[in-house]
Amino acid sequence: MAGFRVRPLPFPELRKDPVVDRWVIVSTERGGRPIEKTPSLPSQSSWCPFCEGQEHDTPGELLAFRSPGSPADGPGWWVRVVPNRFPAVRLTSPSAFGAHEVFIECPRHERDLARLPVGSVCEVFESYRQRLAFWRADGRLAYGQLFKNVGAPAGASLEHSHAQLIVLPMVPSDVRAELDAAKQHHIETRRCVFCDLMRSERESERFVARSEHFTAFAPYASRFAWEVWVFPDRHDPHFDAITPAERDDLAGLVRLLLRRLGDALPQPDYNLVLHTAPFSHSPHEPYHWHLEILPRTTQAAGFEWGTGFAINPVPPEQAAMFYRGSADDSLC
Amino acid sequence: MAGFRVRPLPFPELRKDPVVDRWVIVSTERGGRPIEKTPSLPSQSSWCPFCEGQEHDTPGELLAFRSPGSPADGPGWWVRVVPNRFPAVRLTSPSAFGAHEVFIECPRHERDLARLPVGSVCEVFESYRQRLAFWRADGRLAYGQLFKNVGAPAGASLEHSHAQLIVLPMVPSDVRAELDAAKQHHIETRRCVFCDLMRSERESERFVARSEHFTAFAPYASRFAWEVWVFPDRHDPHFDAITPAERDDLAGLVRLLLRRLGDALPQPDYNLVLHTAPFSHSPHEPYHWHLEILPRTTQAAGFEWGTGFAINPVPPEQAAMFYRGSADDSLC
Repeated sequence: MAGFRVRPLPFPELRKDPVVDRWVIVSTERGGRPIEKTPSLPSQSSWCPFCEGQEHDTPGELLAFRSPGSPADGPGWWVRVVPNRFPAVRLTSPSAFGAHEVFIECPRHERDLARLPVGSVCEVFESYRQRLAFWRADGRLAYGQLFKNVGAPAGASLEHSHAQLIVLPMVPSDVRAELDAAKQHHIETRRCVFCDLMRSERESERFVARSEHFTAFAPYASRFAWEVWVFPDRHDPHFDAITPAERDDLAGLVRLLLRRLGDALPQPDYNLVLHTAPFSHSPHEPYHWHLEILPRTTQAAGFEWGTGFAINPVPPEQAAMFYRGSADDSLC
Repeated sequence: MAGFRVRPLPFPELRKDPVVDRWVIVSTERGGRPIEKTPSLPSQSSWCPFCEGQEHDTPGELLAFRSPGSPADGPGWWVRVVPNRFPAVRLTSPSAFGAHEVFIECPRHERDLARLPVGSVCEVFESYRQRLAFWRADGRLAYGQLFKNVGAPAGASLEHSHAQLIVLPMVPSDVRAELDAAKQHHIETRRCVFCDLMRSERESERFVARSEHFTAFAPYASRFAWEVWVFPDRHDPHFDAITPAERDDLAGLVRLLLRRLGDALPQPDYNLVLHTAPFSHSPHEPYHWHLEILPRTTQAAGFEWGTGFAINPVPPEQAAMFYRGSADDSLC
């Protein structure tokens, strides 16, 4: 990472996530391997179905923030949500019943949220909130997984900045594991495991930043180099219960974290993953929504597929130091 | 895939693995997305630390099959096992205690096992067996994960055909999940869950091939396009208990499956993952070793990291048909 050299650990470390049963080997020696791959997406300057003016290349919009009076599925929008043309699940499917939507986050061809003005990022987060609220009110499905894939190594097939929402008829196993752990911790302590985690990480060397309403830190058992998590200080299971002030604050913080990542890694490849409660979860049940930024600098390989373990070449304490770095003023 | 066109399913399908709690969405529509990435490793024709004559570029050998009288760590070998220069775990580490070894599978620069003569592949499997037997006898560690990464999208950092063994002080969570499921099934039925699975898959449309001692099939909840599993007909928890006849038969079958994959996908990227019992597991406890071939044509992305679900664009029934295809004679 430009301007930052990973300090070798004397030994690899085996770490377990404090909430779920997930293990990571932190091994700085792995970063010294001879070859690192750098694939990239073909440039799409010539044709991109997500650019303004190409609305006929996507299905009809489900939601758009657009200039007053501009007709649906034409130009004049800032954020546009459409059904995925290549859906992983469908409302009409008897087995993989669900919905798959794409959030086109800007009308011009930009690769990354971090390049948009902060006001645009606020609107992007507002579109996430509205679609999740829509499906929670709809009542037919169980869980909405919102995520972003940026760059080919992170699974993106198109370069233009976008997010996706896959709405499922059941609660996925990894989400269930978090819910079960939160419930167990609540039975034992009467407290939220994520509130406890956030409180202790604020005092740790993995602390990254606080904004008015949020805390960011590099998780103890980071699966990815430069991984960072963002938690709202106010306990709430549901992302879609975010207030306008919180939403705008979140947009600013996430944009800053992504810019910090991009300052160092030109055109970083990453996944952004929202963790929020199942639709039917009551606000009083123990869960605490949060966002994970997962930079993708290595490939999951045979070892990871066999064991479920991850190997991370950058100790989270060093990642946190990097994020705090000279950007302390702007991040805090 | 050349010569094979995936038939679209009328609907995406949600499938659960019959043994462990792992879900897959099989969605042929995902295969139609506009862009597929094709990164590749830099050619290493000029310099490769694994080629014969470069023995000084790797640590001293732990095991080698070499011509009689040729000195250790010099030329004259067919298979050579050395400590990994960039280990994920180490015997001297207080936390990530373990061992990390590399199997250099051929002296000449070949990308893939499938290109080697069948006798060489037998010796490669023999080297796997010997190192796993070594660590089982050693008694200090709990589990050996043997795997191959072929191609950059599968996590390889070097092109020259090689495998790796990571020996761990505990049983990884994904292996534990299989063991627990096997134990539960045994309590309920007094039978091995994998023997049952193999018996039923032999009669299914996911059947791929039988050799003298092995059965290959495309698993019902394949996480990857063209995924195929190989099970020994003889029930045994431990790979290192394989007989010479079984080992040679396995080498022939795996080589044929990889050639079949390579006939269609030029230079396929894949992981090969061995599932075997923990070292301390008694031969009478319910487990059944097997091999998984996991071709890597797509990237795990935000959805997969958030939910634990995989998305597979090729129905396993069609993958099996492809493997059986015109190669029926040579495979069976």
